[in-house]
Amino acid sequence: MRFGLLGAGRIGRIHGLNVAARGDARLVAVADASADAAASLAELAGAKVASAEAILSDAAIDAVLICTPTDTHADLIEKAVEAGKAVFCEKPVDLDAARIRRCLDVVAKSGKPLMIGFNRRFDPNFAALEKRLRQGEAGDIEIVTVISRDPGPPPVDYVRRSGGLFRDMMIHDFDMARFLLAEEPVEVFALGSALVDKAIGEAGDVDTAAVVMKTASGRIAQISNSRRATYGYDQRIEVHGAKGMLRAGNIHETTVEIATGDGFRSDPVQNFFLERYAAAYRAELDAFVAVCAGKAAPSPSGLDGLRAQLLADAATQSARSGKPVAIEVA
Amino acid sequence: MRFGLLGAGRIGRIHGLNVAARGDARLVAVADASADAAASLAELAGAKVASAEAILSDAAIDAVLICTPTDTHADLIEKAVEAGKAVFCEKPVDLDAARIRRCLDVVAKSGKPLMIGFNRRFDPNFAALEKRLRQGEAGDIEIVTVISRDPGPPPVDYVRRSGGLFRDMMIHDFDMARFLLAEEPVEVFALGSALVDKAIGEAGDVDTAAVVMKTASGRIAQISNSRRATYGYDQRIEVHGAKGMLRAGNIHETTVEIATGDGFRSDPVQNFFLERYAAAYRAELDAFVAVCAGKAAPSPSGLDGLRAQLLADAATQSARSGKPVAIEVA
Amino acid sequence: MRFGLLGAGRIGRIHGLNVAARGDARLVAVADASADAAASLAELAGAKVASAEAILSDAAIDAVLICTPTDTHADLIEKAVEAGKAVFCEKPVDLDAARIRRCLDVVAKSGKPLMIGFNRRFDPNFAALEKRLRQGEAGDIEIVTVISRDPGPPPVDYVRRSGGLFRDMMIHDFDMARFLLAEEPVEVFALGSALVDKAIGEAGDVDTAAVVMKTASGRIAQISNSRRATYGYDQRIEVHGAKGMLRAGNIHETTVEIATGDGFRSDPVQNFFLERYAAAYRAELDAFVAVCAGKAAPSPSGLDGLRAQLLADAATQSARSGKPVAIEVA
Amino acid sequence: MRFGLLGAGRIGRIHGLNVAARGDARLVAVADASADAAASLAELAGAKVASAEAILSDAAIDAVLICTPTDTHADLIEKAVEAGKAVFCEKPVDLDAARIRRCLDVVAKSGKPLMIGFNRRFDPNFAALEKRLRQGEAGDIEIVTVISRDPGPPPVDYVRRSGGLFRDMMIHDFDMARFLLAEEPVEVFALGSALVDKAIGEAGDVDTAAVVMKTASGRIAQISNSRRATYGYDQRIEVHGAKGMLRAGNIHETTVEIATGDGFRSDPVQNFFLERYAAAYRAELDAFVAVCAGKAAPSPSGLDGLRAQLLADAATQSARSGKPVAIEVA
Repeated sequence: MRFGLLGAGRIGRIHGLNVAARGDARLVAVADASADAAASLAELAGAKVASAEAILSDAAIDAVLICTPTDTHADLIEKAVEAGKAVFCEKPVDLDAARIRRCLDVVAKSGKPLMIGFNRRFDPNFAALEKRLRQGEAGDIEIVTVISRDPGPPPVDYVRRSGGLFRDMMIHDFDMARFLLAEEPVEVFALGSALVDKAIGEAGDVDTAAVVMKTASGRIAQISNSRRATYGYDQRIEVHGAKGMLRAGNIHETTVEIATGDGFRSDPVQNFFLERYAAAYRAELDAFVAVCAGKAAPSPSGLDGLRAQLLADAATQSARSGKPVAIEVA
Repeated sequence: MRFGLLGAGRIGRIHGLNVAARGDARLVAVADASADAAASLAELAGAKVASAEAILSDAAIDAVLICTPTDTHADLIEKAVEAGKAVFCEKPVDLDAARIRRCLDVVAKSGKPLMIGFNRRFDPNFAALEKRLRQGEAGDIEIVTVISRDPGPPPVDYVRRSGGLFRDMMIHDFDMARFLLAEEPVEVFALGSALVDKAIGEAGDVDTAAVVMKTASGRIAQISNSRRATYGYDQRIEVHGAKGMLRAGNIHETTVEIATGDGFRSDPVQNFFLERYAAAYRAELDAFVAVCAGKAAPSPSGLDGLRAQLLADAATQSARSGKPVAIEVA
Repeated sequence: MRFGLLGAGRIGRIHGLNVAARGDARLVAVADASADAAASLAELAGAKVASAEAILSDAAIDAVLICTPTDTHADLIEKAVEAGKAVFCEKPVDLDAARIRRCLDVVAKSGKPLMIGFNRRFDPNFAALEKRLRQGEAGDIEIVTVISRDPGPPPVDYVRRSGGLFRDMMIHDFDMARFLLAEEPVEVFALGSALVDKAIGEAGDVDTAAVVMKTASGRIAQISNSRRATYGYDQRIEVHGAKGMLRAGNIHETTVEIATGDGFRSDPVQNFFLERYAAAYRAELDAFVAVCAGKAAPSPSGLDGLRAQLLADAATQSARSGKPVAIEVA
Repeated sequence: MRFGLLGAGRIGRIHGLNVAARGDARLVAVADASADAAASLAELAGAKVASAEAILSDAAIDAVLICTPTDTHADLIEKAVEAGKAVFCEKPVDLDAARIRRCLDVVAKSGKPLMIGFNRRFDPNFAALEKRLRQGEAGDIEIVTVISRDPGPPPVDYVRRSGGLFRDMMIHDFDMARFLLAEEPVEVFALGSALVDKAIGEAGDVDTAAVVMKTASGRIAQISNSRRATYGYDQRIEVHGAKGMLRAGNIHETTVEIATGDGFRSDPVQNFFLERYAAAYRAELDAFVAVCAGKAAPSPSGLDGLRAQLLADAATQSARSGKPVAIEVA
């Protein structure tokens, strides 16, 4: 299986090197606006540097990984599926839901698979929890809680272009909530504040937020986000059900603990998302390779991408209006 | 110090026996609608049985503990303070906020202290957390999370008379959120479902609920409640702040752990609120004795009782209307 | 049931007040070399002060609790059983095994029950572990590990009179190992060092020690002791068996945890043995009351006291000689 | 840097693939008695198949990794250093201490570095603990405890050739104890039993064992081993010191936890040594590459290998004789 990579930034490098380390797939070409970034990764991965156009028109390439800036995703997805390639695209498809819908129409007509990069579904801990949830270990689902806190806020410049916390950061948690609930939320209420960095508030965004959602059958989901956690990258999920509670927690840097008169102290939790989710990125690629091989349907799909985006849009609107927003299921 | 007890039910017995076990206070009289309940406790505690009226008019009694049904609280508080007694009253003062306000006016005029029984503030774990929070260990408060799940739902008959989950159960969590936030919530949004017991839904109440609240400075509080937790009485608090996170968890029945091929299994958490909060009830009485001795102002005060009730009312209204409710700080 | 207490020191007060708090037993008399100590406890417990002789000859007293200095235990036990009383005696019966044997002969002839105060067997955590062990949860026992570390070393004067670490401190762990193994050790090897306090070494004792023991069927027990642990009173047991591992750990002062850039810090473990084992002392008294009522055989018995002492003697000898010591089962 | 690999079995494959994944080293040749094993690894790693002799005489090879059966180690080490290569050899150098000494003399004369594969020193958890221990976090070391339990016993055939539990399994723990103690044990006492598999006992070996050791300054080390743990590969270390306790524990398969009426259950610990120590093997190779580059002295060295072997020999002798064995520091 031959892969082309569009975008050789931080996340593109991860996927590119993960392809290169496989026995059943090869990274053949890398495109990036920065010639240096493309060349450096291409050398490491044993690939050539090429333009996006060249990759998309290369009949010998079976699949592309889209890791370019968000505003290019929808166009590249369309071109790639029309060129007959299987597509993996980092979230989001687009910040505009209408644009996502048009893109998914093009994908549907092409008959080619599109998988969206919600990496957390593939974290071995969260994936194991979801599997056990589906097997009924916790019984009927009643309350899903997702806690997600970044180690530190991004630059305000990034915040300005990001679409806002709900679309940029909490979208992962909307996807996780949907993944765990196994039912669509029909109502969203969001609260947000700029408590971490005043400049984020001045830029019209929030850095601290909470969302509650409800599904048609009455299941409840709670999400909380902060752009800063002093103790690492805080990523926790908990599902309360009729038979019990399933939860998955953080991974500490080491298992070392010191006990003194000040108490028992263990390490901070893993701080960097590329480290925290290294295994998830590998498993995500496993899933996409299975999709390319025709062994599995793409999951998360383009529709999953759309639905998470609609929740993020609704939360954004709710936080602004101060009112709950009903979701019409896509 | 001489105490009279009004109400010798489950919680009245706890307080009565805690008074009896002290060196600095005596339980002298017990009143209860059930002569048997009064007699049984009176014998254990070395007290006499008396009517509520007799207790209130006994000049030798310094303070009364009101543990009667909710709908008698306000009247008894008024009579007691007018009779010159210090009063400890189990929550709530009344299910009707207007009635609470009138009662607090009577208390204010009397010059006598009124302390409200929000026992969880006195749990040694939660009290230690709050103290460290006030000392600034977590920095400025950003997100307060309270998780509170009962082992099992009450009978539907009880539910019908209870005022609803938000007033009957979550009121403890509203008080805890206020205690931790150290700032009044100004907005409340609530979601509820009847997922545990259909009959609770048919009775017009919910058994699973989530609330988000915001303070004027933008602090966020999240509360979730369930009327059933298979693994015990689930009582957790977590405060995320600028410098770190403080949290306090459950207490397992024992510290025993078994490791086998199925994994590592520890005990359920303490299942019964009287066991879970036994130390809290003792510390609560310590605080009231200090109030009676003039060494401390009553805390939680009648105003704390009113404010928690207003939040519970707002949540009840929000869950019914589907809209957030603004709180005018009392 | 009417109790007399001989010895109103730290541990005598615990037992005396625990008797006084019961509904099914009364503390009627307290004896102590210090008139003040006896009077203070007697007042609190509603008992009278009496001489040991008066207590032993008072036909209205059913049982005595012996909490006097070690060198008086054997004589008092003999006098008490000969006076027809049920006897609870703090460990050890005597520092000399031959004296213990003579005393147990007197007890046997009297037909009166003697229970020895190895309080840790009654700790709810350790008792639950032992029960589950007997029920076979861990399968056949292979390795028993006991870790026991005091918060700080005793004064050297105390050390000099104590019989040495193995008889004074580790004797509890020898009893715990026997309790868990359910088989007698037949071989003991001990190592000790004075690492905590040089003066303890100069007094001929050790403050840091490790013991390994083996039973006839090949089960292995490991014990380690230190006279100092900066993080509290460290009390852990672990049993490795054919089906799994059962362990019971320490109890932290509270459940509060703080997470910052320095990591996650929980409280030290409970520091003081009277706090750590408060529930154990109450359960121990429950057991003795059942013995007095003829509902249970005394356990731990005088023979348990002797056997733990023989292991402590063997360990003392082993640490001095540098050689393992064989145990002839008493 | 060009590496040759002698031995393409389970552990040889790990090292070979770890070399192949590096940017600063290449695996150029693989030798194995099994042509298939050699060919399969060579293909994966981009190396050629060669004989051991060819590898040792190939001047273009800088360093060799010796992963062959134990009885070939000493000869191969000698040949390799005499051929001018840096050598990494899996433990042990030999089962006979005299043979190890002769081999180390040859190494010394050659001036070439020899590093021994005690992989656990490189586990990120244990390495972090040791670093913090050296920085003084726990103060002066008093008691080192190493618990090491395999998921299941090896075949009896393997046991017969293994040199016995102390040399085959506990040798890792002797090395770990030395690593942590930072002082040589001068006395060893060992107990062993065959409790897991009778056939192991019939083969003259033990499967359950405990060792205590003492250093000249009085530090104490305890080790316990079992050939079977139902809950995974149990690998724990704990160091008690004057200022506190440092410990490092097991790694669970996932962070998922389920809470029900049966309690809270987390996963078994990682079961397979190649998974548990995957990061350790990579870090071990980092260290050897630094040695080859002249940037670091080999550690653990050949002398570390000898000293661990002498402790294993002493424990074997102690378990047989029933007497402690004094160690003359090599």
